[in-house]
Formats: sequence, C-alpha cells, structure tokens
Amino acid sequence: MSSQAPDSASSADWEGLLHWNEQGLVPVVTQDASSGRVLTVAWMNREALRETARRGEAVYWSRSRSRLWHKGEESGHVQKVLELRLDCDADAVVLRVEQKGGIACHTGRESCFYRRLEDGRWVETDPVLKDPALIYGSGSVDPHSGPKN
Amino acid sequence: MSSQAPDSASSADWEGLLHWNEQGLVPVVTQDASSGRVLTVAWMNREALRETARRGEAVYWSRSRSRLWHKGEESGHVQKVLELRLDCDADAVVLRVEQKGGIACHTGRESCFYRRLEDGRWVETDPVLKDPALIYGSGSVDPHSGPKN
Repeated sequence: MSSQAPDSASSADWEGLLHWNEQGLVPVVTQDASSGRVLTVAWMNREALRETARRGEAVYWSRSRSRLWHKGEESGHVQKVLELRLDCDADAVVLRVEQKGGIACHTGRESCFYRRLEDGRWVETDPVLKDPALIYGSGSVDPHSGPKN
Repeated sequence: MSSQAPDSASSADWEGLLHWNEQGLVPVVTQDASSGRVLTVAWMNREALRETARRGEAVYWSRSRSRLWHKGEESGHVQKVLELRLDCDADAVVLRVEQKGGIACHTGRESCFYRRLEDGRWVETDPVLKDPALIYGSGSVDPHSGPKN
C-alpha cells in the first residue's frame, strides 16, 4: 500500500484535511476491490485512520466498545487496504480492500448488506458462508457486536 | 423498482426496522449499479427513505439545508434506484443506482470520492466531466453545498 505517510509532518497534512463529526468520527465505506460489493459501513477516528494507513489493513473505531478495532482481530477476516479515498466534503472515506476469507459480516456472510427491499419487505438475499459459532468459537452472536468481526 | 411499499402497514414495518441515529438519520452509500463505483455518501431520515422507495429515485436529507433533497433537482443528475439494501445492524443503507448524466459530484466529477491517498498526500485522480458553472448556471460553487447536486 502506498498510502503510508512518509513522516509525521505530511501525516498531519493529510489527516488534517478531514472534517470529523462532533464525536471525532467519519463514516467509512469498505468495498471489495475486485467485485465492487459494499461490504460494510463503519467509523474511524483520527487514530483509526492513521493506523489503517500505517498497517495497510482496516482499523475502525468501535462505537459500541469505545476502542480501536483492527478488523479481523478475532475472526481472522482482515481487510487488506488497496486504496483509500476521500470525498469532496472530506467527511467520508472509501476503502477498497481485499477481504480475507471472503467474509466481512459477523453473521458469516460476505457483506453486511445482505438484505434487499422487495415489495415493502426486507429479504435476505445472501447465504451464510460460515457459521458464526465456528468463526468466533461461541454459539451466540450479538447482532450488534460489530467489533467481533 | 420493486421496493415500493404496497400499503402503509407494511411500509411501517420495513421502515421500523431501521435504527436511526440521535438526529434521526442513517448514512447512505450510493453506488453505480453497473461499474460498482461508490458515487457518494449522504444521509436519510425516515421521510427521505420513504420518498426514495416511493419515487424510485434517491431522496436524501440535506443536513446543511435541513430539508429533503431530491438528488438532481437542480442539476438533472437524478439517481434512479435499482436496489436498496440494509446492513446487519440496520443502521446503514446502500443504494445501487443508475446515475443520470454520469455525474454524481457537485464538482462535476463522476464520484465524490475523487481523491486517493498516495504517499501521505491526497491526489485528485478523476477529471471534471462538466464545469459546475454549466451544471448549476453559476460561476461559484461552494464545496459544501451538497444539496446543489
């Protein structure tokens, strides 16, 4: 990945451009670089963005646990960052990634966006590729435990 | 588009599943259905989501203007919604769209994400396809005037 800041001065420059919200966060869209599928929407604070650029792997801010969350730290489903993009308002980021294991969602699916609106109903369109109990070594998965990913 | 609610009862059902933030909003990722390119990240409240499903065209909530914003209302760059998806936590939406005019960004570019991080610098990688002055009939475009899109 070529996005690592060469020194702290220019690091401050590229991070300084961002407009963080009142919680010091920006929304991050993570997209599979080959298929284009949107895998997840998560959040980053400044440190998470810096860590993502430094490691070349997605590091988010877990709002539920109030800590940095290196995606895949439990599941092994790390996201290798191939490209990091910023929008016109500098308040949203896109990561184009290589998704290890082909599973981004804590439900064991490829994408977190596995429901489609059809005739006024949300229909699950995507199969579970791996039982979350096998991914996390537990029979119970809280649907809001994003950081377990 | 098949996502229009057939009646108010089931409409309440599908909208009721969403978890709105403290401002009553959810982030929305809008993606070109054919290329997979992420075009923009915007926000919806409940009414915007309902209007999007009803029209089959993207309607956002403009945070800067505090009003519904039918994307393309000034520029003509309407987004025809082919698919509407919801994530596992029910707090983010993906729209897969057909982008009229091939321009989603108020700067006249295809995508709002026209900057890529390269060696600690944001590099503009995308050309301006049409002068914003020609799109909006004005020489000055405020970079934070998203609703002008």
